[in-house]
Amino acid sequence: MLAETLAALRPADPRAIADARAHQDRLTKPRGSLGALEEVAVRLAGAAGVSPPPMPEPAALAIFAADHGVHARGVTPWPQEVTVQMVHNFLAEGAVANAFAAQIGASVTVVDVGVAADLPDDARLVKRKIAYGTADLSRGPAMTGEEAVRALEAGIGVARDLVASGARCLITGDMGIANTTASAALIAAFTGRDPAAVTGLGTGVTEETHARKIAVVREALQVNGILMEGRPDPHGLKLQEASRVLAAVGGFEHAAIAGFILGGAAARVPVILDGVIAGAAALAAAALSPAAVDHCVAGHRSAEPGHSAALEHLGLRPLVDLELRLGEGTGGLLAHPLVCAAVRVMHEVATFDSAGVTEKHM
Amino acid sequence: MLAETLAALRPADPRAIADARAHQDRLTKPRGSLGALEEVAVRLAGAAGVSPPPMPEPAALAIFAADHGVHARGVTPWPQEVTVQMVHNFLAEGAVANAFAAQIGASVTVVDVGVAADLPDDARLVKRKIAYGTADLSRGPAMTGEEAVRALEAGIGVARDLVASGARCLITGDMGIANTTASAALIAAFTGRDPAAVTGLGTGVTEETHARKIAVVREALQVNGILMEGRPDPHGLKLQEASRVLAAVGGFEHAAIAGFILGGAAARVPVILDGVIAGAAALAAAALSPAAVDHCVAGHRSAEPGHSAALEHLGLRPLVDLELRLGEGTGGLLAHPLVCAAVRVMHEVATFDSAGVTEKHM
Repeated sequence: MLAETLAALRPADPRAIADARAHQDRLTKPRGSLGALEEVAVRLAGAAGVSPPPMPEPAALAIFAADHGVHARGVTPWPQEVTVQMVHNFLAEGAVANAFAAQIGASVTVVDVGVAADLPDDARLVKRKIAYGTADLSRGPAMTGEEAVRALEAGIGVARDLVASGARCLITGDMGIANTTASAALIAAFTGRDPAAVTGLGTGVTEETHARKIAVVREALQVNGILMEGRPDPHGLKLQEASRVLAAVGGFEHAAIAGFILGGAAARVPVILDGVIAGAAALAAAALSPAAVDHCVAGHRSAEPGHSAALEHLGLRPLVDLELRLGEGTGGLLAHPLVCAAVRVMHEVATFDSAGVTEKHM
Repeated sequence: MLAETLAALRPADPRAIADARAHQDRLTKPRGSLGALEEVAVRLAGAAGVSPPPMPEPAALAIFAADHGVHARGVTPWPQEVTVQMVHNFLAEGAVANAFAAQIGASVTVVDVGVAADLPDDARLVKRKIAYGTADLSRGPAMTGEEAVRALEAGIGVARDLVASGARCLITGDMGIANTTASAALIAAFTGRDPAAVTGLGTGVTEETHARKIAVVREALQVNGILMEGRPDPHGLKLQEASRVLAAVGGFEHAAIAGFILGGAAARVPVILDGVIAGAAALAAAALSPAAVDHCVAGHRSAEPGHSAALEHLGLRPLVDLELRLGEGTGGLLAHPLVCAAVRVMHEVATFDSAGVTEKHM
């Protein structure tokens, strides 16, 4: 399923991009006056292979939930059981992600890919548990290669199912206490930056915990043989290494989100990335298939420093920049109306000719 | 009507603000993790005088259209007739503002407060024409004091009517070729900044036109006696001076938008400000009644340098920052889903207690 998905993936269509740019310039507005939104519409045209691109509605949020062995290292003040408690909160529609999804009419699917607890049957819960949490990435690989592939394929499967049931935009979500630690390790590995530069405060740690978290990320890279001469390889990782790195220092939700991105991209449905966990997963997806990035929109820039590093490496500009650091898909959900507005302009706005509006004197 | 509106205006309620902050901290999310959106919800609680504040839906956009005598000075490459052409485009639902309004289910009302052409009868067009464009602000006052009050009251009336017909959020919009020149003059006057620092490229001018535009703004401040020792008064203007400055260097749409803000604030309905024209108008509204600002949300930051100066002076943080420079209300419309999401959190998200989620170890 992974190989088939990677084979199906196509890069952006340059003709659709050119058509979209030309169309933007005929609309009744000063050229370029919609700023970054014009690029979003052009990007989606390239991804869809047609201009104007289809409206990215309805949207579907998938929240991939998992636990992390590295939690035992004291990298966060939140107890591990908050992961499963929040899964129940999502299913009871009590979380911020539920409120934001309701605001835009998006469906919410929760996917257990590795929560360290048993979960009840629920129509909105997809059970794809790989294990009861990963192993501690600072002591050795977090997952086996086979587990990483299973998590990737869980994400691909969820993307396929959501598209099959009518979703025309996928939004990444995550829940996993300690997952900003794994994200920092993935980002350091894939971008070649120093752990100290990409490890942030997560959902509220003290200075002491922050220092420990950086040390743990450094250890993880060392113990898993990802450090080159004391630093991650500045030239990035070779393609065949991508799965190994993902398995070594990722979380089940990172692997699943990477698969979710690949699945959306293969179906030519745009994927709005949430924050730092999605950024780390997108680096893995891009390492597996660079064309995957053409189908992604960066929903927001989180307060985590590693997220900016990931977005820069991916060449993505975030739409919402309001110092959110919640996760769950909240930043992606907030960006969805902006993405819709960008595409709607292409479908509904009159041209200078059709509206009888005079263009400026050059 | 103006005096009555100013008398009705109340500042933010400190108790509602305290209640809103306390409520935010009990919700199932790390404290502060919704970043700037938490402040939006708190702000709206203060403005409404109740926590949680009412949902700001449905929204109503009012596009105030007018022409400018200063157009004759060659401050823009766009012909003046584009103002009336765009009014027709709004009524035909062909403009970007129409597409963005459709995206969020907002009504669109176009208000002629000074277009230099006759307009047809249309249910969505409110006819409150003060004159066929202002006088040239660089040669003397753009309006008489009486005209400025009529424009202010036109805006108050539109706000009242929209609230009476059910709007629970007002969004400012504008159309007027050359109105970034008047905006720059207003911003220089109200913030005390130098014209060169607040005069931008508008909807696309050359370097030569930009230099002329700055000179024209400087002339306008001089000829209207607003300059103090060669610079605008750095201590800001006295309250009684506000109307005179607005009349001297504003446009009819600036005065009407200032009234629209005052009208919304008096009705305790939040007003989302669009770009630089709204920023200039909000400075005038704030000079007339400082409490008006408590009821405003800055929708976006436009690419115009004067807009950042206005927002800073008003103490407002913009929600959308995507280099838009279109006007029409487009930036305000894009921000509306973010404002709704911020408030929805207060109504729908579970608390740690109610959801049985453990709080972090401090």
